[in-house]
Amino acid sequence: MEIINIRRSVRSYSNKPVEKEKVELLLRAAMQAPSARNQQPWHFIVVDDEETLQALATVSRNVQMLKEAPLAIIVLIDSESLTAPLMAPQDASAATQNILLKAVDLDLGTCWCGVYPREERMEALASILNVPDRFQVFSLIAVGYPKDKAANRFVDRFDPARVHYNKF
Amino acid sequence: MEIINIRRSVRSYSNKPVEKEKVELLLRAAMQAPSARNQQPWHFIVVDDEETLQALATVSRNVQMLKEAPLAIIVLIDSESLTAPLMAPQDASAATQNILLKAVDLDLGTCWCGVYPREERMEALASILNVPDRFQVFSLIAVGYPKDKAANRFVDRFDPARVHYNKF
Repeated sequence: MEIINIRRSVRSYSNKPVEKEKVELLLRAAMQAPSARNQQPWHFIVVDDEETLQALATVSRNVQMLKEAPLAIIVLIDSESLTAPLMAPQDASAATQNILLKAVDLDLGTCWCGVYPREERMEALASILNVPDRFQVFSLIAVGYPKDKAANRFVDRFDPARVHYNKF
Repeated sequence: MEIINIRRSVRSYSNKPVEKEKVELLLRAAMQAPSARNQQPWHFIVVDDEETLQALATVSRNVQMLKEAPLAIIVLIDSESLTAPLMAPQDASAATQNILLKAVDLDLGTCWCGVYPREERMEALASILNVPDRFQVFSLIAVGYPKDKAANRFVDRFDPARVHYNKF
């Protein structure tokens, strides 16, 4: 379970495409996320078309790495399927995090690009990807083989000052 | 990396306490989550005091399992430390999800109880735990050894109808 400890944000990728089988494993991991009342609010758009990737890369500064990424996965929330609507962004976050972790297991690098709740980003991405109104664009994940093979590596992030016992 | 695929919400626990070493591993996993601009907005309260657990259990229906759980971890957001405030709930979700996954690796069961953005839950928990105003109570995770040892198990959640290619 070193996966959790070595996951880093990877923004530079080799040319190697991501295998279809691996994409399915990432999506399977995403759909194993917990969700409030088991509402499973998620849909996913897998983008490997070069022209679409370049269009997505123009949307905001934080998705620049799509200029060289071979793949992006966009996580959507189906706003008409919700039984616990306030919790849907947390469900979609858990699905996003599962993708990041599974990617490490598959020797891939990822970068979680925040989209929701920034309307300008949500609308720009929805427009490029023909997303129907009932769906909200939640996050965008750049995926690829890291140019630097040691990109996923352990960094100690533990800070005992952040931990409190029984009361704050 | 079967951890992701076998994690389930576990609401029934044995009496066995959770070892201190395992609690630290859960917190280490949490602090490895990605965060927007690496803002790491999280603090954690670890509760194993029986009286406090019983008090927490009264806060809402969705935390009832604390009546028998030996441990709870509460994830807080430090609202005065944020460089990307809109994204902090997503960072805290990723930290929460890391705890759930690491727990499976340690033979523990967990249940993610949604708190934020429901003010009544946030305030009730903050009051019991003496949380200062600058922190928001984000989530509560019940933790324990599952009464049913096979509680974490594979359930196929993959739905190909949720996947779209290049455009919606």
